[in-house]
Amino acid sequence: MMSKKIEITLTTQKKDKPDYNKLGFGRYFTDHMFVMDYHTDKGWYDPRIVPYEPISLSPSSMVFHYGQAVFEGMKAYRTEKGQVLLFRPDKNLSRLNTSNERLDIPAVDEAFVIDAIKKLITVDKEWVPTAEGQSLYIRPFIIATEPYLGVRPSSEYKLIVILSPVGSYYGDQLKPVKIYVEDDYVRSVKGGVGFTKTSGNYAASLKAQTEAEKVGYAQVLWLDGVEKKYVEEVGSMNIFFKIDGEVVTPALNGSILAGVTRDSVINLLKHWGVPVSEKKIAIEDIYEASKAGKLEEVFGTGTAAVISPVGELKWEDHVMNVNNGEIGPISQKLYDAITGIQSGKIKDEFGWTTDVEELATIK
Amino acid sequence: MMSKKIEITLTTQKKDKPDYNKLGFGRYFTDHMFVMDYHTDKGWYDPRIVPYEPISLSPSSMVFHYGQAVFEGMKAYRTEKGQVLLFRPDKNLSRLNTSNERLDIPAVDEAFVIDAIKKLITVDKEWVPTAEGQSLYIRPFIIATEPYLGVRPSSEYKLIVILSPVGSYYGDQLKPVKIYVEDDYVRSVKGGVGFTKTSGNYAASLKAQTEAEKVGYAQVLWLDGVEKKYVEEVGSMNIFFKIDGEVVTPALNGSILAGVTRDSVINLLKHWGVPVSEKKIAIEDIYEASKAGKLEEVFGTGTAAVISPVGELKWEDHVMNVNNGEIGPISQKLYDAITGIQSGKIKDEFGWTTDVEELATIK
Repeated sequence: MMSKKIEITLTTQKKDKPDYNKLGFGRYFTDHMFVMDYHTDKGWYDPRIVPYEPISLSPSSMVFHYGQAVFEGMKAYRTEKGQVLLFRPDKNLSRLNTSNERLDIPAVDEAFVIDAIKKLITVDKEWVPTAEGQSLYIRPFIIATEPYLGVRPSSEYKLIVILSPVGSYYGDQLKPVKIYVEDDYVRSVKGGVGFTKTSGNYAASLKAQTEAEKVGYAQVLWLDGVEKKYVEEVGSMNIFFKIDGEVVTPALNGSILAGVTRDSVINLLKHWGVPVSEKKIAIEDIYEASKAGKLEEVFGTGTAAVISPVGELKWEDHVMNVNNGEIGPISQKLYDAITGIQSGKIKDEFGWTTDVEELATIK
Repeated sequence: MMSKKIEITLTTQKKDKPDYNKLGFGRYFTDHMFVMDYHTDKGWYDPRIVPYEPISLSPSSMVFHYGQAVFEGMKAYRTEKGQVLLFRPDKNLSRLNTSNERLDIPAVDEAFVIDAIKKLITVDKEWVPTAEGQSLYIRPFIIATEPYLGVRPSSEYKLIVILSPVGSYYGDQLKPVKIYVEDDYVRSVKGGVGFTKTSGNYAASLKAQTEAEKVGYAQVLWLDGVEKKYVEEVGSMNIFFKIDGEVVTPALNGSILAGVTRDSVINLLKHWGVPVSEKKIAIEDIYEASKAGKLEEVFGTGTAAVISPVGELKWEDHVMNVNNGEIGPISQKLYDAITGIQSGKIKDEFGWTTDVEELATIK
């Protein structure tokens, strides 16, 4: 696979760039995309960079009916020296294959796809933002394309990578958000697909999100689907609590996504000597800590938002105010450290970043 | 909405018909399809019948990423008199809106879509099979089409209806199948989306299905996701057990699909005076009944297979033989009655069928 040549077809008509002060998230796309096809008889084939354009699919393509679809999200950052850095792409590609395995989608060659992403970004390098807080969001995704209505794994797929210059996901990103603890709808259980980035997980979450927004909350905090007692994750982020000096986050249990930012946060806290542990966390215990004045900080972690401080949690009738609705020192320090490493401002002691123009295989 | 005109564009090049002796399921599609668009600002608009052709979507269309997609499945049958009958389309369209509601997709006008389906079938009437056991499978589906990567409900959708002449879903349909009771993977829990026909439910089921096939089983029987004690449904069907003279099926509990065939079976059994009840059914009790020689029949129900007799159940180390691996009398009687009503051979005492050339709104 690694020896496969990526065919490049450049666009003949470059798009106008959007107003980079009003990027928002995931709204604008660059001039090119990477595409690779799969067929049971051929494996992954025909890797190519082509102009960003609509894709044409049979209405009976399985993705529309049976949802065999997985994706990843990562970001590229421009450094002050003009380099473009990727942040831990190996973690994302490894997780893509974890999702593939669960969804019965054929594995991809991780190193090859990382190289393909680097080539694609190099082709569209002029789209990588330069301003503080902006980045190039990278969305690899795989969809089942066989035109067939039987319920079984597809024999054909497309892997596509698209690029979107983005501002911050939540707008003014370090403004703490209010979170609603969901005790009616369920996101996932052990034995399901909650640990994967498959499209259906997100579809299933929308209704709860919409209802939370109606009552003034930005996101929902999911509880476990069995007992509805234990904290799982927030909307599209992992969740951390700082309680009485210790930072805790739910342990990966089969229904929680293994976030790359989550892992980076745990590593950074350990590196700094801040007590941090992954464990089963009862919402009741969060409430007790809050009543006792020991719930010091709460924050979500994810590629889109990096660190999203939480200023209020609502669980049943209980409203828990966190740090007077202000960002806490650990949340701020983590945000500064991660975005600093991502943008090359802070020395990367962890080997997390890689230059897109460095096309050798990542080990 | 009801006054909206459906624009019809006929194909200029009709396809060759496939070999109707080798139809299989969901492999061939007719010459036309129905399409209708939705935008938050306009509602559902531009209903049209157009040639069956690939659809062109932005690679950032939300369906590829966040899986906001629902579908329905129903069948049209040709009677000996040449009529084409639909079977309980009102139930399917009502369930489509149930799925829409849970997936945060805008509701459709059920009567209007039924009329559109009738018009579409009338346009492609020559594709409706005439032979015993064959039918025209109807697949309405809705996909989120807004080109945007933020996680929230789409502001744009497409409703598409495609038609496929089919043989029987499982090939030799009344040959009893072997079913594997799944106690590792989970399909759904209360609070999730198990009661809807959303694409992600099917994607999540594939891995268990593949693993069951590897050890010689045709389908999996799902247990509840909380205690893994209670029977839910089989692969893409509902499940019924005849135990000591009584027919039982799992009660609708929020994680089970409300099958149209399931409902028809319950109605028929009641009509015939056969004891039937919907309740919580422990797999342990099925095993005990089997050991006691009281597990008389097991069958799945669904639009594709109608009635699918089960000849063997495997749960943990226990292999339960059902009726010596042969179809039981109730399974056969139900199959004959339902397919008889569907094809117009048996008088429809329930008002379940409707002629496609009868374009008035169904009440």
